[in-house]
Amino acid sequence: MIRSLDPRTGEAFGPEFSATTNNEIDGIVGAAASAFSTWSRTSPRKRAFALRAVADALDAQSEALVAIADRETGLGIGRLAGEVGRTTFQIRTFAGALESGDFVDSHLDAAVDGPLPAGHPRFVRTTVGLGPIVVFGASNFPFAFSVLGGDTASALAAGCSVVIKAHSAHPQTSQKVFDIALDALVKSGAPTGIIGLGHGHEFGKVVISDPRISAGSFTGSKSGGRALFDMAQARISPIPFYGELGSINPVVATSSALADPTQFAVAYLDSLLLGNGQFCTNPSILFVPRNEEFLSALENNLSGREAQPFLSPATKELHDRNRAILSSSTQGIIIKAKEAPAKGLYTDAQVHIFQTSQISTLEDLHREYFGPTGIVITYENVESALSIINQLEGALVASIFAHESDEGVKDILSSLTRIAGRITWNSWPTGVAVTTGQHHGGPYPAATSPLHTSVGIHAITRFLRPISFQGFQDELLSSLTYENRSN
Amino acid sequence: MIRSLDPRTGEAFGPEFSATTNNEIDGIVGAAASAFSTWSRTSPRKRAFALRAVADALDAQSEALVAIADRETGLGIGRLAGEVGRTTFQIRTFAGALESGDFVDSHLDAAVDGPLPAGHPRFVRTTVGLGPIVVFGASNFPFAFSVLGGDTASALAAGCSVVIKAHSAHPQTSQKVFDIALDALVKSGAPTGIIGLGHGHEFGKVVISDPRISAGSFTGSKSGGRALFDMAQARISPIPFYGELGSINPVVATSSALADPTQFAVAYLDSLLLGNGQFCTNPSILFVPRNEEFLSALENNLSGREAQPFLSPATKELHDRNRAILSSSTQGIIIKAKEAPAKGLYTDAQVHIFQTSQISTLEDLHREYFGPTGIVITYENVESALSIINQLEGALVASIFAHESDEGVKDILSSLTRIAGRITWNSWPTGVAVTTGQHHGGPYPAATSPLHTSVGIHAITRFLRPISFQGFQDELLSSLTYENRSN
Repeated sequence: MIRSLDPRTGEAFGPEFSATTNNEIDGIVGAAASAFSTWSRTSPRKRAFALRAVADALDAQSEALVAIADRETGLGIGRLAGEVGRTTFQIRTFAGALESGDFVDSHLDAAVDGPLPAGHPRFVRTTVGLGPIVVFGASNFPFAFSVLGGDTASALAAGCSVVIKAHSAHPQTSQKVFDIALDALVKSGAPTGIIGLGHGHEFGKVVISDPRISAGSFTGSKSGGRALFDMAQARISPIPFYGELGSINPVVATSSALADPTQFAVAYLDSLLLGNGQFCTNPSILFVPRNEEFLSALENNLSGREAQPFLSPATKELHDRNRAILSSSTQGIIIKAKEAPAKGLYTDAQVHIFQTSQISTLEDLHREYFGPTGIVITYENVESALSIINQLEGALVASIFAHESDEGVKDILSSLTRIAGRITWNSWPTGVAVTTGQHHGGPYPAATSPLHTSVGIHAITRFLRPISFQGFQDELLSSLTYENRSN
Repeated sequence: MIRSLDPRTGEAFGPEFSATTNNEIDGIVGAAASAFSTWSRTSPRKRAFALRAVADALDAQSEALVAIADRETGLGIGRLAGEVGRTTFQIRTFAGALESGDFVDSHLDAAVDGPLPAGHPRFVRTTVGLGPIVVFGASNFPFAFSVLGGDTASALAAGCSVVIKAHSAHPQTSQKVFDIALDALVKSGAPTGIIGLGHGHEFGKVVISDPRISAGSFTGSKSGGRALFDMAQARISPIPFYGELGSINPVVATSSALADPTQFAVAYLDSLLLGNGQFCTNPSILFVPRNEEFLSALENNLSGREAQPFLSPATKELHDRNRAILSSSTQGIIIKAKEAPAKGLYTDAQVHIFQTSQISTLEDLHREYFGPTGIVITYENVESALSIINQLEGALVASIFAHESDEGVKDILSSLTRIAGRITWNSWPTGVAVTTGQHHGGPYPAATSPLHTSVGIHAITRFLRPISFQGFQDELLSSLTYENRSN
């Protein structure tokens, strides 16, 4: 049984959700496979219409959705209302891409007379939906990376049906978003199996291994994501698995960034502690030159910060375990915020910042601290900072705070380019724009597929498979593919 | 020890190649990693210059290369000379893509005022080379899919260094191509580790597991490709593995395609027996309505066809084993060509075409018959053909021979679209054009990554990783990335 837990009080509340049975899974996946065969041939314009209907329906119910999500996650009304807005914005962004024909349009390669290799027949290269997709909802974004988040929206835009695993930290929000979305989709002409929802740990394992499923998409922890990735690759027919796993995001500041040490310390803490540090773009490791004013400002500003609750018992447990290891390993000092109240998932949520000039092992940096924990490494010179950075694993994002004429900036950027999917200049890594220029991914473990992004329009390419039609004339192709291209 | 074998005589000849030792591998991969850090920052124009130098050098030595390759593979002078031409054509195609800026250019996403999600900072989204790549040479294309084939050329174009495993069926050709290419690359300013070559079975396993390697690329058998894919995914940091594995390519003909049964039979045999049937785009399964004239024409035309030698003992062994299983399982008749001479790799290379109206198990169709074996399935009606086709696994290519007004054509195309990466209309699947509209891949096992092609310009995208620069002005970015963008 899965039941909502109020992180602020630790109390369970609301209906009980049974784990989806294998029989039910078979029905959900079967319906998704059947829905795919019609939805994938639906015209882009019709798909866009259905997506806009979903966005409108979610916006219309935003207040009720936010209230449930706030009680399930403790993330706060303001943040969650913003997240619904972001979610419907991105659904409409994919609708817009379908209407404009970007990412799904055909490319005509006219015939060239003469023998191969210079000569060739006529080609139309286009894309088709990959097949039914399984999406795993994330704990920390109950809207933007969950039931109708960017993964589902981009898969639907690509012509795929989607089977979704609800995250156990917000089953009621998941169910409500699902009900609203399915209703809007079906009223817009989509087949009933277009999206399916399931609950429980086994659900994900069974679905990712089902031969009718063509890809998986996941946002979450390294261990959870890797386990699902391994299942997806071990299948008789392996499938793409787009995992965005826990990410260590380095921030490198030069001394010119510390011109106003207090301002920098406050901005760092604001970014670090957003959503209780439970952000995949969290500035988890800050490299700064040794600067007493900055360290004092950090301590002074941190001391007044209140604890925020963890998202779920599992999140809290993983964080606490890893932080305990770090505490025993680190040789520096620990700066702390206000003590956390001993109730619900506030317990032990007191912010800790580990400040050190040297690391004991690289492991200390690669462990996931998904919560109110920061690491500040003070460096002697850029070379010593780079000697650590050059050993870091893949990161979703890395940041530089510097003046462009500072010594070593070019080397810092070069090192960060090797490990990160996004690099921010004099700006904090949190706050991910949903736009064409976005790349939210990176070398493993930032993403299990370093070529793909889970945010921004390019996210749709994860669910589109190229196909070439050789020797076909346009009339024949259009009569044989979409139900009616002029729709 | 690896030594060339003349398929026509079965005699070993030429120098012995030692299996590359682990020490040597460490040096080759280390040199590739070091070369990557400079080559990836070389301007596209300089990379294009180096690629054109390689193409020119290979063309200049074409005659000598073809002579060695012909003795090692038995594929014939004409075919191999054409293959060198195709190989240098595709190297120049990638050079042209670099010169035009396609596939590597940056996309500017100007800042939009206001808060997220509609507002956002300035982004430059571009791509960077993935890292050092390992390429596995193929047996059946000693030039186009080997040392300086499409995989290596596209990886070099992407700014990657490349470690290549020479195929044991043509070690001398591999070594000679490598020597010519390395010389041309280094003379064009590339670092000495830009390409590396190794021999032996262990070489591939060690290199694909090396943490300094960022992706693998392979063309070959299902079992060999899957084993390497599994190693690439089992790493601590899994990497993309672009395998193009043995492919079952269905051809569906309606009765209107059999208007001239003899012409159709001859064209089918010509495509089926190209390169002794050792083509990944081989028309391995032909679905035709029962037509006595066609079957007689097939028998008559086949009876005069001479055997061709296998590429290697391993190819022959796999083919013979699988064909023996098919012979005992099939319930139809076997049409044979001329008996094969009992010498070299001609032995047992007599062409067999299995003609049946029903299959015993789907396994009979999914087994690899990489050689002179065809399967002709005569069908009662389109539905009965589709009931088999809908169960087939992924295919590189599928073909339809029909008139567009024929009954069932739309259903045939719909079914083939679900399983194939390329669909040809009234044309045979062999003969792969190197052009923008090409897609040479498909659902597993046609490709281990259904989103990517190994032929045509898009092949370069396999080795490019997107990256977003947030909040950077152009001057800063260009001064920090390529050595000099105006070069």
